[in-house]
Amino acid sequence: MFDSVINLVNSCFHRQYYVHSDDTVAQQIVVHKNSPRGTLFRRAGPAQKVYFDSNDVRACIVTCGGLCPGLNTVIRELVCGLYHMYGVHRVLGIEGGYRGFYSRNTIPLTPKIVNDIHKRGGTILKTSYGGHDTSKIVDSIQDRGINQVYILGGFGTQNEATLIFEEIRRRGLKVAVVGIPKTIDNDIPVIDKSIGFDTAVEEAQRAINSAHVEAESAENGIGVVKLMGRCSGFIAMYATLASRDVDCCLIPESPFYLEGPGGVLEFIERRLREQGHMVIVIAEGAGQELILPSDKSNMNRPDAASDDLFHDVGLWLSLKIKDHFARNKKMTINLKYIDPTYMIRAIPSNASDNVFCTLLAQSAVHGAMAGYTGFTVGPVNGRNCYIPFHLINEGQKRVVITDQMWARLLSSTHQPSFVNPQHNTEEAKITLLI
Amino acid sequence: MFDSVINLVNSCFHRQYYVHSDDTVAQQIVVHKNSPRGTLFRRAGPAQKVYFDSNDVRACIVTCGGLCPGLNTVIRELVCGLYHMYGVHRVLGIEGGYRGFYSRNTIPLTPKIVNDIHKRGGTILKTSYGGHDTSKIVDSIQDRGINQVYILGGFGTQNEATLIFEEIRRRGLKVAVVGIPKTIDNDIPVIDKSIGFDTAVEEAQRAINSAHVEAESAENGIGVVKLMGRCSGFIAMYATLASRDVDCCLIPESPFYLEGPGGVLEFIERRLREQGHMVIVIAEGAGQELILPSDKSNMNRPDAASDDLFHDVGLWLSLKIKDHFARNKKMTINLKYIDPTYMIRAIPSNASDNVFCTLLAQSAVHGAMAGYTGFTVGPVNGRNCYIPFHLINEGQKRVVITDQMWARLLSSTHQPSFVNPQHNTEEAKITLLI
Amino acid sequence: MFDSVINLVNSCFHRQYYVHSDDTVAQQIVVHKNSPRGTLFRRAGPAQKVYFDSNDVRACIVTCGGLCPGLNTVIRELVCGLYHMYGVHRVLGIEGGYRGFYSRNTIPLTPKIVNDIHKRGGTILKTSYGGHDTSKIVDSIQDRGINQVYILGGFGTQNEATLIFEEIRRRGLKVAVVGIPKTIDNDIPVIDKSIGFDTAVEEAQRAINSAHVEAESAENGIGVVKLMGRCSGFIAMYATLASRDVDCCLIPESPFYLEGPGGVLEFIERRLREQGHMVIVIAEGAGQELILPSDKSNMNRPDAASDDLFHDVGLWLSLKIKDHFARNKKMTINLKYIDPTYMIRAIPSNASDNVFCTLLAQSAVHGAMAGYTGFTVGPVNGRNCYIPFHLINEGQKRVVITDQMWARLLSSTHQPSFVNPQHNTEEAKITLLI
Amino acid sequence: MFDSVINLVNSCFHRQYYVHSDDTVAQQIVVHKNSPRGTLFRRAGPAQKVYFDSNDVRACIVTCGGLCPGLNTVIRELVCGLYHMYGVHRVLGIEGGYRGFYSRNTIPLTPKIVNDIHKRGGTILKTSYGGHDTSKIVDSIQDRGINQVYILGGFGTQNEATLIFEEIRRRGLKVAVVGIPKTIDNDIPVIDKSIGFDTAVEEAQRAINSAHVEAESAENGIGVVKLMGRCSGFIAMYATLASRDVDCCLIPESPFYLEGPGGVLEFIERRLREQGHMVIVIAEGAGQELILPSDKSNMNRPDAASDDLFHDVGLWLSLKIKDHFARNKKMTINLKYIDPTYMIRAIPSNASDNVFCTLLAQSAVHGAMAGYTGFTVGPVNGRNCYIPFHLINEGQKRVVITDQMWARLLSSTHQPSFVNPQHNTEEAKITLLI
Repeated sequence: MFDSVINLVNSCFHRQYYVHSDDTVAQQIVVHKNSPRGTLFRRAGPAQKVYFDSNDVRACIVTCGGLCPGLNTVIRELVCGLYHMYGVHRVLGIEGGYRGFYSRNTIPLTPKIVNDIHKRGGTILKTSYGGHDTSKIVDSIQDRGINQVYILGGFGTQNEATLIFEEIRRRGLKVAVVGIPKTIDNDIPVIDKSIGFDTAVEEAQRAINSAHVEAESAENGIGVVKLMGRCSGFIAMYATLASRDVDCCLIPESPFYLEGPGGVLEFIERRLREQGHMVIVIAEGAGQELILPSDKSNMNRPDAASDDLFHDVGLWLSLKIKDHFARNKKMTINLKYIDPTYMIRAIPSNASDNVFCTLLAQSAVHGAMAGYTGFTVGPVNGRNCYIPFHLINEGQKRVVITDQMWARLLSSTHQPSFVNPQHNTEEAKITLLI
Repeated sequence: MFDSVINLVNSCFHRQYYVHSDDTVAQQIVVHKNSPRGTLFRRAGPAQKVYFDSNDVRACIVTCGGLCPGLNTVIRELVCGLYHMYGVHRVLGIEGGYRGFYSRNTIPLTPKIVNDIHKRGGTILKTSYGGHDTSKIVDSIQDRGINQVYILGGFGTQNEATLIFEEIRRRGLKVAVVGIPKTIDNDIPVIDKSIGFDTAVEEAQRAINSAHVEAESAENGIGVVKLMGRCSGFIAMYATLASRDVDCCLIPESPFYLEGPGGVLEFIERRLREQGHMVIVIAEGAGQELILPSDKSNMNRPDAASDDLFHDVGLWLSLKIKDHFARNKKMTINLKYIDPTYMIRAIPSNASDNVFCTLLAQSAVHGAMAGYTGFTVGPVNGRNCYIPFHLINEGQKRVVITDQMWARLLSSTHQPSFVNPQHNTEEAKITLLI
Repeated sequence: MFDSVINLVNSCFHRQYYVHSDDTVAQQIVVHKNSPRGTLFRRAGPAQKVYFDSNDVRACIVTCGGLCPGLNTVIRELVCGLYHMYGVHRVLGIEGGYRGFYSRNTIPLTPKIVNDIHKRGGTILKTSYGGHDTSKIVDSIQDRGINQVYILGGFGTQNEATLIFEEIRRRGLKVAVVGIPKTIDNDIPVIDKSIGFDTAVEEAQRAINSAHVEAESAENGIGVVKLMGRCSGFIAMYATLASRDVDCCLIPESPFYLEGPGGVLEFIERRLREQGHMVIVIAEGAGQELILPSDKSNMNRPDAASDDLFHDVGLWLSLKIKDHFARNKKMTINLKYIDPTYMIRAIPSNASDNVFCTLLAQSAVHGAMAGYTGFTVGPVNGRNCYIPFHLINEGQKRVVITDQMWARLLSSTHQPSFVNPQHNTEEAKITLLI
Repeated sequence: MFDSVINLVNSCFHRQYYVHSDDTVAQQIVVHKNSPRGTLFRRAGPAQKVYFDSNDVRACIVTCGGLCPGLNTVIRELVCGLYHMYGVHRVLGIEGGYRGFYSRNTIPLTPKIVNDIHKRGGTILKTSYGGHDTSKIVDSIQDRGINQVYILGGFGTQNEATLIFEEIRRRGLKVAVVGIPKTIDNDIPVIDKSIGFDTAVEEAQRAINSAHVEAESAENGIGVVKLMGRCSGFIAMYATLASRDVDCCLIPESPFYLEGPGGVLEFIERRLREQGHMVIVIAEGAGQELILPSDKSNMNRPDAASDDLFHDVGLWLSLKIKDHFARNKKMTINLKYIDPTYMIRAIPSNASDNVFCTLLAQSAVHGAMAGYTGFTVGPVNGRNCYIPFHLINEGQKRVVITDQMWARLLSSTHQPSFVNPQHNTEEAKITLLI
């Protein structure tokens, strides 16, 4: 069809690297005899049949929501992938998130401009929360003649991308809308992991190490580290598993209570008696239901921004622990609270995330160039796939608790499960059957 | 059966985390309609039925071959996993590789002793090449009453583990023999990746960055970095993809030639003319067939040790490039050669590898405690499985070239494929059919 | 005198390395014609005449106050210096600060025990604030037969060391009391710098970098970083000079005001208009006089501990900035506040501090072995000296403002001096005279 | 005189920060009663009387010789210092070392262009060895109307700067020639230290750590690390002192011999017997006199470049050690040789060096603007001074051996001094007199 493009693509890809149009990836990989394979996803990769003529392509890239490591790498690889793999030379950067579509000028992006940006944290396109206005955005897309839209963002952003996709369809425009999952929380449904996750877990080690040193250097030292994760405790769980210095990991998926027998405070007391110090990692979304309105007045943190719905649970827990030991007078404790959030999310992506971002960006480009639209690109069982928006939006956020990993974590920290006695009994009953 | 064990296990694992005995992982994940699933591997995890009574278990751990990041983490987690998950208190360290079985005393390993070792590179058990003597080793196992043998090593080591496994069967001993794949080259068949690989790719960035800075700061500067990889170029390829500063990546799986049109030297000349500097990454096993005996006299490196069969291809390539430009007098070059091998393999594992090593060690322990033997533990499509030794030994070493990744790399470095003209033509022909 | 010691010392030090007993270091190094040299300090180093017989020495080490990088290195080098340079084999660790003298058992310290501790942050001896009880401490020293006391601590700790020194003199005991200056604030009088300072400045770069990335990635992004420094802004100033990304540095020695013309808020507004983002570094002791009681209720931080007198000025400033822009409605800002305190002070010392700590510890040992007492060891104009306690205690805390460096910083950040208009006029007048 | 400049300067510097024109720094700081102060050096800093009108200034910057950390920081701060402190807007970069003056176009340098370069290693101006042609260079300076020349380079470069300075004087040009000492070896006379040194010592720790891990993980493991230092062993010595893992440090200033009693090989054997492994650090200039022509054929290293006069002593030592143990058959050793040279010198400068580079560059600018010429700027006893070229050129290169530090190192590694027996006896005799 478009010979020039095809030749260019061919110079990059040997024939065997084309993805067959019926290549799919099975969601269900752990199988029993004759068990179903679950949903099959279209595998990402260069297609033999290219939909767009590269001379006609006008792509744009936008980053929305909070920072996470790897945004610049994805931007770089989208630009370079379009340029070098398909000869697309017109790529625009939308500045400052969704509202940049209608309130700002665009920035031309070339391989030269983006050449070194992957070595810096943040996003050269700036980002913001909110600002989504479907019709203004689609107006801008239409007015500027954009026919490929790459949207980097988390769960909310992907939802809003759907609105853009639907409005574009309604207007009958030939515009590919592609989502690239960006959330450090790693809670996007269907896909294995999102960008920046590995880097975040790595960098979290610094905070945990510091908490551990502070705790060890004091009498009854307690180090509390708050890590990202509102609905899911992936970072907290992986950082705990990687560190081996954590005594207690609290996540949103696994409810806990503070007071009384079997509660967190009792466990802290016991652990301090046993080893003289301890480290607690808490995900930001953990225990939100326990924070009373009266607690909140003490926690007027200045950087709430878009984070108003979430109270600083690390601060809350720290106060609760201090109060408890001040009241009980049983032991004097030394608690240090560390919130490394901004120091984690602002660093450049590490090597592993750089490779991941590269493949994701290239997959996104292949998908759009092949004429697919309304999909998010992401790894399913280790292979990048095109996932229709609705499967992301309708899916449940990924959580830790369904995962074998949580059991591994419990066996690693030797923390109790902080669940109610009834539940415990039920478990006990089950195990007696064996 | 063994109630004490079962109770201990139950306190660690909720019922739902037991692996069903018919849980398998399909090797074939990219599927077409009704396509076969390939080999199915038994999924690793805690079994409901435990074979060993923990009071009777006497486990031993041995590390063989060269260093790679993560050995100490695996040792730590084997010891802690046996102790905390199953109550096994008698774990012995075999010192200095296979020959330690018969020529050295064992070292008792406890959670306290191994508590912090994951923060250090190398192996606290020391390691060595060779020294395998099946009957002496099995004598030692028998004499010491050992009934679980954990062997960390690469392809060769896993082969030798099979000999131990078979001799043990021949003697009718009830001893679990478990292999844990350790090769920084990442070339072990069947499994997704081996321990230390992520860390190695990360650390390789330092060498590549330095080569890039040296190259950029000189006129016609060339930075050459040699990375590990004898049969496969995984580290070289991933490090190149992660860096984006590499202009040419040479690996064992993709033959190349130096002189003449389409050769590496011509490409170097062109790239220098275009951008004034360049970075070359070469895997240690690349181009071995091109090294003539006469070249070798120039490369008497002191640290050959067990590496006698491999000539320092980075040194060889550097000399060839220097000779070429000295001879042609077309341009004066400034070449800097960096061999970061020991600086990469001796560092502690990063967070991602720490999690990987933990899960691998726990899987190994679950497998042995369940009574499985003669298997290597490793991830298949992202899930840890028990892989019978023979599938590892008979499998072909993993290579890069079958992977889509190599195409991605070529499109990222824009290097030619350095293959012969015929091959090129053939490709061209095919693409015309589209 | 003590031949065995002398021989041991001789085997370590060539004759020329002895410090002459009348070697002194001049405090005044910038000199005019015939200007006085200021105080002369006795140079530290091995003396030809050793006071103690090493067989009789019973040394002890104690760490007091907050953490700073390098404590473990000093402990290690005191132990190794005493052992290897003088053959002293009996060194005790006092655990948990001053109160450890009378409320805890001592820990024997040997070269083997301390061999690797310099690679870890914190202090293996644990530390605490307060707990000083002169007579109980000297009782303990006397009862245990200790005759060398090495005290690591900051300004307060050195003051208390004087009390111990005087009580010991009053009792007529032959005990050397040696202070080793430990304060990350770097505010100890007379000496050039204290341990851990270089490491702290290095590590502070991470926080500043993150603040910079966050600020750059948002519209009107402001990154606020609080760094250590109660009476002096050394860390803030050096970290700012090292980074070059900081737009405004606020320190205790240089008063400022927020509102009105020439104030900090006006400057922030201007800088945001000019470049769209900015980074502010504030030392913890800056602007304390501006914090009103009504502000304090908002800042109930959990980790106040011994820090009760200081309010979190970073939090306060962040709230003030947010309030200002919320009120004025001129621009929407995005402020991120980072407090890296514990992540900085808990890391291991870097190479430069390791060398510094080694020389300091060796100097301390030489001084005590030569029979000196009642002194703090520290660098004066780059040479380690013995400084009598009273010169430290009576000296004024070191401050930044007398230093040329502050002028350099102002010329580097281009921030105004935030002083009152009168002062500005006066300056202008003077310069007209030139 | 030039009011505009003065006002600008005044806005930067409070009155008290001007350097008095008779401020000097005494070279001799360790003093005895009435001892002479040695040479007095003019203290660097802003002068009250500015020589150049900033509108007339045309400055240029050139980097010569090998890389070291901090070059880009100095370039940045020269440009920003001239611009912000004095309003000088015309600064040219000379590309590729001395030969760039006559064979290349110049590059305009502005604060915007250099804003982020301090975060990258190397030099954005590129560098080269040689190429010095006094009259061509001065022709170029004259033709381009340059009146301030900033030359970054080591001992040789500073010598050549003198030739330029003298030719300029001969021609009667009003051109300030300023040297900025750049040598990672730290061997420039008079000054305390040169840029990049701290960073180099820090980065060398990685190589030493790796050598230590490799040595510890093998039977009779020996790790050999070669570090920079041709005439002086500063990096080797400081890296050894910082690490505490080094058993033997060999430097140019302290001769040694391999074979026989008291030789290095005997020491290695002893240390291996004692502790089973060891780490050796060798400076590149150590033992050059021991390398026989016959050894050299084995050491044809590809990256000799300008380094032809120096043979790879690390490689040579490694071969000698391997030969020795292969011959003696007393023990099997495992030797790993690490040459981290390029990985050290190509990294960005750390915080401490960034501050140092900033002050040095600002001092250089103040000196030139005040009308001084023919000087090198550098720290003497911790204060930056203007040092006339001839005192640098006629001075002896700085060496380690006159320093107390070497004694400290010997007492830290417990290595013998490897000197001949006569010398030892002489020492013994002297110490008996005490």
